[in-house]
Amino acid sequence: MSDLLWQKDGVRVDAQIMAFLAGSDVLLDRELLPYDIEASKAHAEGLGRIGLLSAQETADLLRELDVLAADVADGRFVLDDRYEDGHSAIEARLTERLGDTGRKIHTGRSRNDQVLVASRLWLKNRLQQVHAICRDIAAVCLARADSDPALPMPGYTHLQRAMVSSTAMWQAGYAEAFIDNALRARQALDWIDANPLGTAAGYGVSLPLDREHTTQALGFARVQLNPIYAQLSRGKFEIAAIDALGAAMLDLRRLAWDLSLFTTGEFGFVGLPAEYTTGSSLMPNKRNPDVVELLRASYAPVAAARSEIEHLLSLPSGYHRDLQYSKGSLIHAFGHGLAALALVPPLLARMEWRADKMRAAIDDGMYATDRAIELAGQGLPFREAYKQAAEQPLPQHGADPEASLAARVSPGAAAALGLEMLKSRLSDL
Amino acid sequence: MSDLLWQKDGVRVDAQIMAFLAGSDVLLDRELLPYDIEASKAHAEGLGRIGLLSAQETADLLRELDVLAADVADGRFVLDDRYEDGHSAIEARLTERLGDTGRKIHTGRSRNDQVLVASRLWLKNRLQQVHAICRDIAAVCLARADSDPALPMPGYTHLQRAMVSSTAMWQAGYAEAFIDNALRARQALDWIDANPLGTAAGYGVSLPLDREHTTQALGFARVQLNPIYAQLSRGKFEIAAIDALGAAMLDLRRLAWDLSLFTTGEFGFVGLPAEYTTGSSLMPNKRNPDVVELLRASYAPVAAARSEIEHLLSLPSGYHRDLQYSKGSLIHAFGHGLAALALVPPLLARMEWRADKMRAAIDDGMYATDRAIELAGQGLPFREAYKQAAEQPLPQHGADPEASLAARVSPGAAAALGLEMLKSRLSDL
Amino acid sequence: MSDLLWQKDGVRVDAQIMAFLAGSDVLLDRELLPYDIEASKAHAEGLGRIGLLSAQETADLLRELDVLAADVADGRFVLDDRYEDGHSAIEARLTERLGDTGRKIHTGRSRNDQVLVASRLWLKNRLQQVHAICRDIAAVCLARADSDPALPMPGYTHLQRAMVSSTAMWQAGYAEAFIDNALRARQALDWIDANPLGTAAGYGVSLPLDREHTTQALGFARVQLNPIYAQLSRGKFEIAAIDALGAAMLDLRRLAWDLSLFTTGEFGFVGLPAEYTTGSSLMPNKRNPDVVELLRASYAPVAAARSEIEHLLSLPSGYHRDLQYSKGSLIHAFGHGLAALALVPPLLARMEWRADKMRAAIDDGMYATDRAIELAGQGLPFREAYKQAAEQPLPQHGADPEASLAARVSPGAAAALGLEMLKSRLSDL
Amino acid sequence: MSDLLWQKDGVRVDAQIMAFLAGSDVLLDRELLPYDIEASKAHAEGLGRIGLLSAQETADLLRELDVLAADVADGRFVLDDRYEDGHSAIEARLTERLGDTGRKIHTGRSRNDQVLVASRLWLKNRLQQVHAICRDIAAVCLARADSDPALPMPGYTHLQRAMVSSTAMWQAGYAEAFIDNALRARQALDWIDANPLGTAAGYGVSLPLDREHTTQALGFARVQLNPIYAQLSRGKFEIAAIDALGAAMLDLRRLAWDLSLFTTGEFGFVGLPAEYTTGSSLMPNKRNPDVVELLRASYAPVAAARSEIEHLLSLPSGYHRDLQYSKGSLIHAFGHGLAALALVPPLLARMEWRADKMRAAIDDGMYATDRAIELAGQGLPFREAYKQAAEQPLPQHGADPEASLAARVSPGAAAALGLEMLKSRLSDL
Repeated sequence: MSDLLWQKDGVRVDAQIMAFLAGSDVLLDRELLPYDIEASKAHAEGLGRIGLLSAQETADLLRELDVLAADVADGRFVLDDRYEDGHSAIEARLTERLGDTGRKIHTGRSRNDQVLVASRLWLKNRLQQVHAICRDIAAVCLARADSDPALPMPGYTHLQRAMVSSTAMWQAGYAEAFIDNALRARQALDWIDANPLGTAAGYGVSLPLDREHTTQALGFARVQLNPIYAQLSRGKFEIAAIDALGAAMLDLRRLAWDLSLFTTGEFGFVGLPAEYTTGSSLMPNKRNPDVVELLRASYAPVAAARSEIEHLLSLPSGYHRDLQYSKGSLIHAFGHGLAALALVPPLLARMEWRADKMRAAIDDGMYATDRAIELAGQGLPFREAYKQAAEQPLPQHGADPEASLAARVSPGAAAALGLEMLKSRLSDL
Repeated sequence: MSDLLWQKDGVRVDAQIMAFLAGSDVLLDRELLPYDIEASKAHAEGLGRIGLLSAQETADLLRELDVLAADVADGRFVLDDRYEDGHSAIEARLTERLGDTGRKIHTGRSRNDQVLVASRLWLKNRLQQVHAICRDIAAVCLARADSDPALPMPGYTHLQRAMVSSTAMWQAGYAEAFIDNALRARQALDWIDANPLGTAAGYGVSLPLDREHTTQALGFARVQLNPIYAQLSRGKFEIAAIDALGAAMLDLRRLAWDLSLFTTGEFGFVGLPAEYTTGSSLMPNKRNPDVVELLRASYAPVAAARSEIEHLLSLPSGYHRDLQYSKGSLIHAFGHGLAALALVPPLLARMEWRADKMRAAIDDGMYATDRAIELAGQGLPFREAYKQAAEQPLPQHGADPEASLAARVSPGAAAALGLEMLKSRLSDL
Repeated sequence: MSDLLWQKDGVRVDAQIMAFLAGSDVLLDRELLPYDIEASKAHAEGLGRIGLLSAQETADLLRELDVLAADVADGRFVLDDRYEDGHSAIEARLTERLGDTGRKIHTGRSRNDQVLVASRLWLKNRLQQVHAICRDIAAVCLARADSDPALPMPGYTHLQRAMVSSTAMWQAGYAEAFIDNALRARQALDWIDANPLGTAAGYGVSLPLDREHTTQALGFARVQLNPIYAQLSRGKFEIAAIDALGAAMLDLRRLAWDLSLFTTGEFGFVGLPAEYTTGSSLMPNKRNPDVVELLRASYAPVAAARSEIEHLLSLPSGYHRDLQYSKGSLIHAFGHGLAALALVPPLLARMEWRADKMRAAIDDGMYATDRAIELAGQGLPFREAYKQAAEQPLPQHGADPEASLAARVSPGAAAALGLEMLKSRLSDL
Repeated sequence: MSDLLWQKDGVRVDAQIMAFLAGSDVLLDRELLPYDIEASKAHAEGLGRIGLLSAQETADLLRELDVLAADVADGRFVLDDRYEDGHSAIEARLTERLGDTGRKIHTGRSRNDQVLVASRLWLKNRLQQVHAICRDIAAVCLARADSDPALPMPGYTHLQRAMVSSTAMWQAGYAEAFIDNALRARQALDWIDANPLGTAAGYGVSLPLDREHTTQALGFARVQLNPIYAQLSRGKFEIAAIDALGAAMLDLRRLAWDLSLFTTGEFGFVGLPAEYTTGSSLMPNKRNPDVVELLRASYAPVAAARSEIEHLLSLPSGYHRDLQYSKGSLIHAFGHGLAALALVPPLLARMEWRADKMRAAIDDGMYATDRAIELAGQGLPFREAYKQAAEQPLPQHGADPEASLAARVSPGAAAALGLEMLKSRLSDL
């Protein structure tokens, strides 16, 4: 490792301790490095605007930061354990190229606001990705509902056969779910869209930093004004972003559960493309829906990351090193969650419904509610109608799934899916 | 217990099992009952508008629901274990008073959408309370910051003395935090502001329910269209509400940690009003800041409620009885969280700063950053300035906390608190 | 409320704050009160043995504590909000009956060790209950396996049909699980079986308390020696007890999931006694396995209680009021968990297997593993055998579930269940 | 990647899906590989003993497995993404070296019991490490308590000054804590010490596997008999191991909190060796106790791993791919937890107590409990004594910390620390 920024003479460094301190920070900082460089550019511009850097110095720093960004993008610069962290690496590189000008880049900032701004930009990017994938999932669902709007399938409550449903109603249900999930990602993004750069170590500095400029240059919606609050928001904003991701994962877990059941031999409602299944090392007969199971399991690492960060935050105000651990779980959770969500649109587009198996699972009792309401429509008090239908469940149309669906006219139900309304909400996102 | 709605002849009922099934549902349903009655009125109106109820029947039901609501409010009607749940109680009461007309109230709805709509209205109310209390906390913080804008206190990082700070900067920090928390409550409220009434048991019904009417009558911003999604949103929306509450509790935990430290004999920065402290049964000398500790601890039940609900939701789509358990933890978390938050405004308004103790804790090293930036402002590369200041930390103004604060001009810092901007954000909420 | 033990003159008491401080402590303390009285007796004896109480005083205290215990048991004494907590109630009662002698009961103890010892005794009792119920569950499983050792059922991996299994293998599996769970409860009980009485407020007292006596009198296996550790163990021991309960609940969740699937129309392997099912308010055709679903859901409150307590424990050493909240979630979790576990033995004893449905779900592919091993037994390398069996899955005995089970001779499998070994482990518990 | 064991012709493989399926399994399997090889040896021996392998085949397999183990240890064989997982790698290597004999290694086992047995052995090893480090921590604590048994320090409750305490009482408290933690690791180890090898895919096989032999050869205390239970124990046993680690981490979090406070400028009770501190990038004056903070934070990843695994386990019986995710969090938690615990013995051995600062923080009120008990010893009812001591707190010995400690004779307290008893418990572990 190169010299530590804060190293003092005569203090010996213990390797085991340094390893513990570093953790996997350098690897994690690779994710943040492009955003750290981008924020460093805004910081340099800001120092220039208040006269702390000359125009030449500013230009030199911006140029070298651009070169570094390109080197990072091309793999010519790889962050590794030569550096304490990404922040030190940037300063070291600028100093190597520009001498004293490089040594000026850290004027008026601290690693505290540096990591805050870089991880804020990273978080915004990830929430944009969540937003985009949720929209994709909703779009696939709506397209399939549109293309086959009245295919009967059994509807369950308590996993017991309840009423006739349709694949389109199921798809429209998940469409509305993921429209809301996209909206939630947008809300989270708006909530955290505040610039912490310029709050230094949590108490500001004695320089009239041009925070309006950096806010605009980095595309933030507002300045995060108070330095103490900037520190309080570390972890808190990360949790909010995970919450938004988690809302989507919660629905994905239920979707995967549906598919896990629907692909059993007993239900058999869904056929999966072969590449979504795997075999067994022992049992020659098996094709297993591993992808679906791992999609279901993907909620767990997201929940774990949230748990990890909230455990860290039982602290007084101000920065504490504890917060370092918020990076790893955050990056892990988004990496995992986004990879899982990205598999969903093709899966939903390509899975096949088995109409015959679904029809075979619709028994006469599933018409009883239709019958009870038919009787109620004729003026019988509902409790009476309920009792009669329990005895003789078939409505006037008989045991006809299509007729049952056609009569289901309450808004949102099979005969009134409202796909146009959902499409409109989707396109407004 | 009165007859069960779904009871069939010849099935014996086991007391231990019934007790397990009921849990504390009846107690919990007391919280939801007023909202259940309100939604029942909208449902009756809706049935009238589509001709399922005559004008007279509708009027009778509305009148009796108003009477019931008044009885509940006055304590003349108490929900207890005579009833399976609040939903059954409403239908039983209407049937007792109106005979067959009462037996019609459940036409076209299920307990599934009934509990969804009642708990949705309850959740909206609780988020409004979170929003209001967060605004109150922010207002108290801003008022105190305004009234004493330059009282020096030590600022810490890693709990080590770092730089001179001020009580106003600390208060403004929490003000900004709770402004954001109020905003978060508002976002959550907007997100869940969708009417599930009319989705029945998750598959709709064969009646053209007037869902636009019930949506407007109950003050929802939009209809929650798809019945399958309505079921998917159970628990998911509850978690979103808890997330919003949790954001406020997260800051409260840190605030309470600050006060817990500041009231130690060693720090001694804060004096609490006597009623916020208690004594010891063994040690005659003690006055303990129990309220502060319980505020700090109040994050735990909120986190636990979230954990409980997310564990319940590993399920396929459709209703499952597992979801019953989402009610208790939700009500517990909001009851607890709101009670804790409500104590904060008077506590913050009345606590006293001990100027002398704070000043005594400001040592010379805490000026070193000011000095380093002073040197950097004179053109020295920051890394050089840093080294010189480590040796000789005092800036030109000497060891003067007020001067240090006066020079802290970066936006948001002690000399540029931006209280007007925060007040403006607060009044826009 | 009666006078507070620590109340000082001139400090006003705020009702909202007192309500927040009290929480539902008095209700919770009802659970602990019998144990608190028991420990108070041991403490009085101990004070007598070191001469702090005269023989008469000791006898008076013991007698009145016995009377109080009887009054509590009979409902003649009900702990309510006349008292700050159960500890205060005991002292108040003794003082009321015995005057100055009553005022001596608190000599050398603090509410800190008083609540520790009472909740320790409570915890031990609850773990004994967990131990006993887990044994009952295992015993029912073994009895059913014994009575019908070779009824074929499909075995699944990934919820896909895998190999022929048997109901007895399934039952023996859960028997072994709950034997381990009973063992775990026993381990937890042993681990926490240490007497904290006599550690006072966490720093001991200047009296030669006879801690050996109280340890024996209260039936503890050892003394918990260090007062600072006694405080550190609060919450930690509670979590250990919840962990043990949680191990059983984890298996119960999986058992309930099995039954939830097995009672679907599609699987149909299991029939439940009618009282374990309920009906629907809307759908006349439904019988729902609510009990099974609530058993499955019962993991959630146990997990939540653990989460709540671990969040509380991010604290320095010594007592903090935060720990008050560990009581409610603990009592809730054990109440809930024990009620759920207690329903399992009769459920398992009375559920019916549907042999025809299980047999119908065994398809030819499920013999392929048998076939592959048959070929491997003939000397074919397993990978070759695997490929051949994938093509032609039937073994020599053909598609015969009983023959497949009879050949499953690896220890623990269908033809070598080892029920005697499990019974032996069970009786050794 | 080499051919998949279960690959069938004509099924195309999707790279994105394969990447998602693989996750970081290969990296994780590096941890398990030595144990997988060890278990493969026992399996080969077992196959030999029942005649499925000839003596020559068995000898060949054992030799090549030894060679592979040596290659792994020396880094000549590195598990990478040429292989689907570690299990496939072993079979591929044996087949490459031994042809058909290698193809026989998988006879009668599945990857399911293969991963179970390897991770079980890994878990046992990690629990042994936890046990050993906890013993080390306790030993350091006892040694320091022994060497300086009566150094006064303030004792706190509610973070308020309570009574005179001593560094030795504090150290003895953590010694007792970590003795219990070592005991807990041993209990967990005993509980999971059961051999799952021979349960195949969860339903056994039609071979009389010699499970007694593999149990003894691998050093397990007992066989895990039932194949369905073997699958149920996946995740459950991992959680039990994490629980044991977590008990130690819970105390470590409190220990680190103590040190975090004790190293503030305000308390100042403890000096840390310089290598346990770091500097600031902005503030020249800072030396921060980062190691202590990261020790405190280390509870979070352990809690998160537990949360992750318990979320995965909401499943019916039988293997599901969801369980794959239990590996990563488990390995992460133990890696992290063990690294943190390992830093504690040298830290505790080398930290310095600041006697002057501690003495200065002992105020007169801290003697009030001593005084109250002194009065109670003279026959005054304790409630009277309490009131008098609140007024005049000093006991007969005056404000003398050493005298206060010398009088603290209740077993476990400062004058009766019982270090010999603790040493005896430690050496019995």
